[in-house]
Amino acid sequence: MTDRPWTPPAIPPLAQHRAAELQARIDFKTKPPGSLGRLEEIALQLGLMQDTTHPELRKPTVVVFAGDHGLAAEGVSPFPPEVTPQMVANYLAGGAGINVFARAANLAIVVVDAGVAVDLRPHPDLLVRKVRYGTRNALHEDAMTDAEVALCLSRGAEVVAGVAASGCNAILPGEMGIGNTSSAALLTSALAPAPLDECIGIGAGHVGPGLAHKKAVLAKVQQRRPDVHDPLAALAAFGGCEIAMMTGAMLEAASRRMLIVVDGLISTAAALVAARIDPAVTGYMLFAHASGDRSHHHALQALGGKPLLDLGLRLGEATGAALAWPLIAASAGFLAEMATFESAAVSQRTAP
Amino acid sequence: MTDRPWTPPAIPPLAQHRAAELQARIDFKTKPPGSLGRLEEIALQLGLMQDTTHPELRKPTVVVFAGDHGLAAEGVSPFPPEVTPQMVANYLAGGAGINVFARAANLAIVVVDAGVAVDLRPHPDLLVRKVRYGTRNALHEDAMTDAEVALCLSRGAEVVAGVAASGCNAILPGEMGIGNTSSAALLTSALAPAPLDECIGIGAGHVGPGLAHKKAVLAKVQQRRPDVHDPLAALAAFGGCEIAMMTGAMLEAASRRMLIVVDGLISTAAALVAARIDPAVTGYMLFAHASGDRSHHHALQALGGKPLLDLGLRLGEATGAALAWPLIAASAGFLAEMATFESAAVSQRTAP
Repeated sequence: MTDRPWTPPAIPPLAQHRAAELQARIDFKTKPPGSLGRLEEIALQLGLMQDTTHPELRKPTVVVFAGDHGLAAEGVSPFPPEVTPQMVANYLAGGAGINVFARAANLAIVVVDAGVAVDLRPHPDLLVRKVRYGTRNALHEDAMTDAEVALCLSRGAEVVAGVAASGCNAILPGEMGIGNTSSAALLTSALAPAPLDECIGIGAGHVGPGLAHKKAVLAKVQQRRPDVHDPLAALAAFGGCEIAMMTGAMLEAASRRMLIVVDGLISTAAALVAARIDPAVTGYMLFAHASGDRSHHHALQALGGKPLLDLGLRLGEATGAALAWPLIAASAGFLAEMATFESAAVSQRTAP
Repeated sequence: MTDRPWTPPAIPPLAQHRAAELQARIDFKTKPPGSLGRLEEIALQLGLMQDTTHPELRKPTVVVFAGDHGLAAEGVSPFPPEVTPQMVANYLAGGAGINVFARAANLAIVVVDAGVAVDLRPHPDLLVRKVRYGTRNALHEDAMTDAEVALCLSRGAEVVAGVAASGCNAILPGEMGIGNTSSAALLTSALAPAPLDECIGIGAGHVGPGLAHKKAVLAKVQQRRPDVHDPLAALAAFGGCEIAMMTGAMLEAASRRMLIVVDGLISTAAALVAARIDPAVTGYMLFAHASGDRSHHHALQALGGKPLLDLGLRLGEATGAALAWPLIAASAGFLAEMATFESAAVSQRTAP
């Protein structure tokens, strides 16, 4: 572990000078003006991101970051920690939810070991970028050192650089990590900021006494580190490796004018950390869905995110992002493929 | 025009006896129980529709019904009536919104001339099932005779029978017809029932004086036929051919245990007519989206429909249904393809 310095990449502003020409292209399509609603807004945003009137989505790639959490020892999840590596194996075997949805939407998948507690069997789709064998238990000490956080951020950027080199200009970051809704809750509470209690939800299914226990544990973690409002310090205090790596990935993607499709509760917490490092990152984000875990809404609200879907999803893995993908592809698609009133010889409106 | 009698087809009840076994299949997949939200409900509903624990979606087909409206002469739409045949030509040339979205989602498309005011050039994807050259002007007389309504319903059923014969078990009905948001408003008001004013929206873009004029015209139409609550009488009074044919198509589809994906304002009005003929039809429906034309909500509410998307769409043509399709396919997909906890050797939850 070297104490590598990390500096955030420069993120270019959206190409607002393209807005009028893009809007004209959108309005000349054979449809009543505005009748494609959010899809028209997305088409515009994609053009501004890519600095072109003809945006294209190339080789969209799901990147699932996996990591373990020392805090899982406190029983904050109803699932045991060994589920993290088991689910990684499931992704690599093609049997998880994200695999099904990514296949259907023609999305590539890369799985990144950001900090799983055990060594994983090598696989061509697995990038081992492990920073630690799981984070420390945030109830007793910081989950990561500053140097570990910096390493996560750098490695996340490297992963995106690699994906970009393969021709991708859109990433769908996702995650797996037993215990990581706890990190997400603590990060959101610290950085939104918002009352901790409202940032804690059902997670992987905690209800009743389980949820009450989770809330009690997280309250103690927050009491240990009550005044963390710096994004890097928050990552160190609360973890986890996969969230920090996702944050680095998002910042790097935006610096390359790549689209970032933000998934659910944990991905949105990473997006919030990224936005607190550089608010310009949000211009490159689309928000896939409002989680079935309603504690999601504080991070979304802090980011000004308007979710595309609201289907009660709370699986993570970028499943919500993959399910929203066809809507995003359709936004670029109508702009590229629809006829204009002129090309199709369709009469325009006669009334104002 | 023969005075053909029409009797609604028998619609089988959903196979509720499969519910427990279906739910168990859903719960054994490698995800926290319930974490796929609405997709889990849809997977269950598909199984109940198809009377199987292993539902499959085969050759999903968009059927766009086109028809003209005598009422369009009153200036209820900002677009001139010749746009109806022009847009049909656009569909057949592959340049409309529905073409773009159907291609992306691998949906077949059939276009049906239900009652366009002019003769259309033959095309392999065009079914000419014209009942009239446009409806009569509903401001002065009923849009259709009872016999014409019956013919529309029969022909809609025949179209679905043909599509089913090609191997399809899911239809996405859509429509095109300048003036048809007016028919939809009048039908919804009569059958929901709901105040007419709340059933009239922006349509293809009417705002300000245009919208006020539309409201004044429709109020007069309703005054001419104030007490129509019978679904067939309402179709006769207010039209149009494409809506009546869609109604017949939906009833036939349900009788064959086929899925019906209900699109926006006009398709939902057709669905409401169908449900007033036989409420069992709704068990075979999924509701694609809440229209950007908010007058949609009365018909949705009367049907108990929970829209999948809420993106401000108001284009019609089954574009909302096509955009929602990947979510429906994903619901069947996760049930068919995801690993179980057992098959993937993933540990189950340890806490309740």
